[in-house]
Amino acid sequence: MHYHTQHSPFGAFASFTIGLPGQRGGFGQSLSGPAGQNVYAGFRAVAAGGAPAPWKLLPFFERPQTAAVAAFTGENTAASSHEPQAIDLATVTRHLGWATDTWTHGPFSLRILSPFDHIAHPDTMDRDTARLTLAPVVHAELAYDNTQGSAAIELLFGIGRTEHPLRPLEDVSSDLSGFALGQSYGFAARPADIAGRIQGLDLFNPPARDHRGLHLLSHEAGVVFLVPAGTRRSFPVALGFYQSGIVTTGLPTCYYYTKFFADLEDVLLHGLARHSHYAALAEKRDAELAASPLDEHQRWLIAQATHSYLGSSQLMQHKRRALWIVNEGEYRMINTFDLTVDHLFFELAWWPWAVGNTLDLFVRRYRYTDKIQRPGGTPVVRGGVSFTHDMGVMNQFTPPGRSSYECDHLHGCFSHMTMEQLINWICCATTYVEKTGDAAWLQARQKLLLACADSLRRRDDPRETKRTGLLKWDSHRCGADGGEITTYDSLDISLGQARNNLYIAVKAFAAWTLLERAFAGLGLAGAADAARASADLAASAVAAQFDADTGLFPAVFEAGNRSRILPAVEGLVFPLFLGYAGELRSRYPELFSKLSRHMANALQPGVCLDAESGAWKISSTSSNTWFSKIALAQHVVRRLFPETLNDAARAADAVHAKMQQSEPLGRYAMVDQVHSATGVSIGSRYYPRIVTACLWLEP
Amino acid sequence: MHYHTQHSPFGAFASFTIGLPGQRGGFGQSLSGPAGQNVYAGFRAVAAGGAPAPWKLLPFFERPQTAAVAAFTGENTAASSHEPQAIDLATVTRHLGWATDTWTHGPFSLRILSPFDHIAHPDTMDRDTARLTLAPVVHAELAYDNTQGSAAIELLFGIGRTEHPLRPLEDVSSDLSGFALGQSYGFAARPADIAGRIQGLDLFNPPARDHRGLHLLSHEAGVVFLVPAGTRRSFPVALGFYQSGIVTTGLPTCYYYTKFFADLEDVLLHGLARHSHYAALAEKRDAELAASPLDEHQRWLIAQATHSYLGSSQLMQHKRRALWIVNEGEYRMINTFDLTVDHLFFELAWWPWAVGNTLDLFVRRYRYTDKIQRPGGTPVVRGGVSFTHDMGVMNQFTPPGRSSYECDHLHGCFSHMTMEQLINWICCATTYVEKTGDAAWLQARQKLLLACADSLRRRDDPRETKRTGLLKWDSHRCGADGGEITTYDSLDISLGQARNNLYIAVKAFAAWTLLERAFAGLGLAGAADAARASADLAASAVAAQFDADTGLFPAVFEAGNRSRILPAVEGLVFPLFLGYAGELRSRYPELFSKLSRHMANALQPGVCLDAESGAWKISSTSSNTWFSKIALAQHVVRRLFPETLNDAARAADAVHAKMQQSEPLGRYAMVDQVHSATGVSIGSRYYPRIVTACLWLEP
Repeated sequence: MHYHTQHSPFGAFASFTIGLPGQRGGFGQSLSGPAGQNVYAGFRAVAAGGAPAPWKLLPFFERPQTAAVAAFTGENTAASSHEPQAIDLATVTRHLGWATDTWTHGPFSLRILSPFDHIAHPDTMDRDTARLTLAPVVHAELAYDNTQGSAAIELLFGIGRTEHPLRPLEDVSSDLSGFALGQSYGFAARPADIAGRIQGLDLFNPPARDHRGLHLLSHEAGVVFLVPAGTRRSFPVALGFYQSGIVTTGLPTCYYYTKFFADLEDVLLHGLARHSHYAALAEKRDAELAASPLDEHQRWLIAQATHSYLGSSQLMQHKRRALWIVNEGEYRMINTFDLTVDHLFFELAWWPWAVGNTLDLFVRRYRYTDKIQRPGGTPVVRGGVSFTHDMGVMNQFTPPGRSSYECDHLHGCFSHMTMEQLINWICCATTYVEKTGDAAWLQARQKLLLACADSLRRRDDPRETKRTGLLKWDSHRCGADGGEITTYDSLDISLGQARNNLYIAVKAFAAWTLLERAFAGLGLAGAADAARASADLAASAVAAQFDADTGLFPAVFEAGNRSRILPAVEGLVFPLFLGYAGELRSRYPELFSKLSRHMANALQPGVCLDAESGAWKISSTSSNTWFSKIALAQHVVRRLFPETLNDAARAADAVHAKMQQSEPLGRYAMVDQVHSATGVSIGSRYYPRIVTACLWLEP
Repeated sequence: MHYHTQHSPFGAFASFTIGLPGQRGGFGQSLSGPAGQNVYAGFRAVAAGGAPAPWKLLPFFERPQTAAVAAFTGENTAASSHEPQAIDLATVTRHLGWATDTWTHGPFSLRILSPFDHIAHPDTMDRDTARLTLAPVVHAELAYDNTQGSAAIELLFGIGRTEHPLRPLEDVSSDLSGFALGQSYGFAARPADIAGRIQGLDLFNPPARDHRGLHLLSHEAGVVFLVPAGTRRSFPVALGFYQSGIVTTGLPTCYYYTKFFADLEDVLLHGLARHSHYAALAEKRDAELAASPLDEHQRWLIAQATHSYLGSSQLMQHKRRALWIVNEGEYRMINTFDLTVDHLFFELAWWPWAVGNTLDLFVRRYRYTDKIQRPGGTPVVRGGVSFTHDMGVMNQFTPPGRSSYECDHLHGCFSHMTMEQLINWICCATTYVEKTGDAAWLQARQKLLLACADSLRRRDDPRETKRTGLLKWDSHRCGADGGEITTYDSLDISLGQARNNLYIAVKAFAAWTLLERAFAGLGLAGAADAARASADLAASAVAAQFDADTGLFPAVFEAGNRSRILPAVEGLVFPLFLGYAGELRSRYPELFSKLSRHMANALQPGVCLDAESGAWKISSTSSNTWFSKIALAQHVVRRLFPETLNDAARAADAVHAKMQQSEPLGRYAMVDQVHSATGVSIGSRYYPRIVTACLWLEP
């Protein structure tokens, strides 16, 4: 239970983060990690005529608050008998569903709802649908079963240590009880529901109260509900965000929801008014996940991953049209393409237009044509089209044709990913079209798709006769003294180098099979045949690298590399997702058979199962393992190579879930880069990419 | 030299804070203290054909930046030979002028300019004047005298550890070289001036550079200038802020400058284009202060106080009309009235319309009519008009008639200040009118002024026959179990209790004399006579409290109080400022004579001079002393009671300046509440109020 979870509206790049005991969280707008607020949620008994018992609160706060008082009075306040008690976690059960997060302690419960649903293209939505779908609000519920109780119970929901003092919402809207920070976020209950609201420099030991019992200078506030003895009650609380005006540079955009919501109060009123709709929707999502044949660890991983994905989602409008962004977790890069390709499957299931939207922006603004080179930088010849690694960072769009990440003269982290992003555009575009049936979209991009095929071939070799089926020419953007890398930028060479890389080679093979189908669909028989020929060449080239002695592929087909990697099969996710993997297996039996042997031998303790923890390792030679890619590899292996799964490999979901549920990772909600032995976070915290785990729900 | 200084544009509620060695600062928008950025300013030699020497930078940064790199690469970088060297402060001279702040280290200098000028009412300004006056920009200059040098010198200005990655301004405007954080702040040089610009995850050991030599993911960036051997160069850098849209709640307002500036780039271009204008203006202000007969400590206190005042200033527009705010330093309360009355003198000298603007908002929205009570809460009778303590906090306006500060049922900090704010409105309004000659303004508020007089009298006693000349009835807003306090909220009872308080009594006496003159000016002879009678009564009442044995007044005329306070004479600042103090002395010789004896006896070590430090103490019984009020008392004493100043009292300016220049206070720029013996900050940090020291410049 030692983990934070991001509770995030769709497309608001905002999270209400809660869950790690003893740690703060709360409302965060566009942050790289959890916010720093106390969350106060709990109850106390109020015996008739007597003093209330101390508050018992879920342990999501740090106390005391004496500094806030001392700043005004110059004195430290004495310890108080009103100090709230943190509920012992041993007496709490927590259940994280796909769209709910529930803590239960005896008759008390807190539930946070972050429902999501299938979403039509925002530009086609009517206003009511848009408000329901795009409202930047999540939902809390406090409940208490006091049917057996003899004393009244008060429930509290509040926050503390906000960035500056909170304001009572009642000062703006008499239909809202709660508090907001300026115009940016707030929590609200229905006035008829509440028994009171409190605000104090120290919420539990307020040095002062005004005529309303509040103190408007205070960074701590809450709403109180009453549950009479003999009754059972549940109260909704809306948790809203709002950011107005232009929020991005380079490409000026504002939040799409500002079309439909005037301000924070509008959001909160809507959230409360439609609470039951959202609760039902969240429960529907939960039920779907619960009904899946997955085990509890797998379900939890999917739930937590989906929550963090939504926290990075950002739907903007540019010239009144939708512009889709997924931010890259703690790094906050805009639409990192090697994440887009991983979010693809989840997005196609829920908001498929988002994929097309991002691909279009890559075409329009983040496409470039490069020269290519051999290692060492000579010769340099015409390359072809590709796409940038990302579109900018933290609401700052980069200039056309340039990413915020890629730098020159490097062989490791921050180098260019030209090959990989070219493959990613092909894989995303063709998969998008096959899944959505949007033939017109592809028709309009036929010329580009042909150019992509040409560019991909030239990166094998610009001279047709020299092509081997492996990508060997780096982009000249790297500089003569640089070389391309892959998305696995912080790993060792086994996954770091793009050239002659097993992962890239199989993914390129998959891309050729996708292109073959796409060209056929466009009626371009010649191009389809050529793509098939390229696929054949790639399949043979990869298969030829198999080392029969060890029964494994090397990770890199250079310099006697002996690393073993699980992403050997990553590229097969596209045929699998589109339902033609069986057909491919029949066509390329040798490749599939060798990949099966590779995976069986790789999925062994000490190779690609961590010898200490049992976690899957994406490379045998790096202890930095990435959960998003593990989830993807698991999916491919389970569906296409189930024969390779031994008991140890099967047992790893529990290991992965437990790592994410422990504080080193749990303090950042979902974490991608993890030390496979120790479970320490290495990077990619608060991260969306692990939503690849939703592939496991594919029928 | 151990102090931060706020460099702030007029009315932008923003500061570029710099100066405390080893501590970060930089660009802060509406913060309660210094921002957390590294500031990189310095130079290095670049011998022809050789490697550059390490950067030598003023010590306004914390290093190294390995964490930023490790977040991406998962690895800590090795220590580097490019680590910049912090210049030893012993080799630096710093001079803070009224509008400049200059560090000189041999041939190198950094100068920050925050010029201010007389400002006409913004609603009447033409566009060019408005842009010159209201631009949210301050100015830096890097200079190097390389006339004797044999190697070229590079100069660097940059920042680091910003809240998120910076963006190159050149991507938006080819006329700007520099970097910005989103749309909110940035620094810019003229493209023709720079020799380069750098941006890196670690500015001095960048793990990666892109095709431009930058890395757009980075929170560290700078511009580089070249000073060839044999030359002397100076380069301007504009430091701009921008905040668009509605930024306040309760009363929706946006920054006034948004009328005249489209965005941050507009601000920075303007700042660079008009740099020489601003530099000349800053130098003019410096020369004025330097030409004053004050000593170096006094001049420094004025300079530092003015800088912090400007940092809290905020000019907004509400329905297209100017709305003036001074925020209360670290507390960020809006137009705290007991600060307004202290800022009055400075504002009347530079932007007098601001006083009227604030008074009007108090009348329109923050006026109330109360009931009043005797101690203990009975009886409760009709009171009169008064005004709230403040108008809200941190861009959140409170509802009409209510402050963010005042609470009920208290006798100390956070209680109501009804008497004091009533007196403050009278003092501000009458002083404003006398100083500006704006008779029409007072004419329109004649009824209110009469109501204020009535309200003030009723707080002596609601029954005319019982009036004694001292304020004894508290506002019923305090509750039966509460009592009013004064602005000196965190002091002991000597200044904390309003009722029967010497400070309040003398200030009320002054208010009556002001009312007498105002009513006379309005042609209300009867009211003027009545005000004079009230002044007479007050003067007698205070004089009667003099204790001939000790030669001192008690601070509170109750319960045998024996505290001694310097604000005994605070109220006389108004007659002094308006030039009729001599007339009053002739009229009330006994009161003046007794106040003289009081001050002479109070200004003794162990009474109101701290026995350890020599600092002035505003109360003999509290070690919490306030520089704003010391400055005010010093002014009154020097001009009206110079005979009371012994050598120890005279020597205190050096003590006060040294305290503010030492780290306990210096880390928060100007601090008001200080421990008189230790110089530790107690409260009121980053504070505008000490601008009262500008009274010393009165002719």
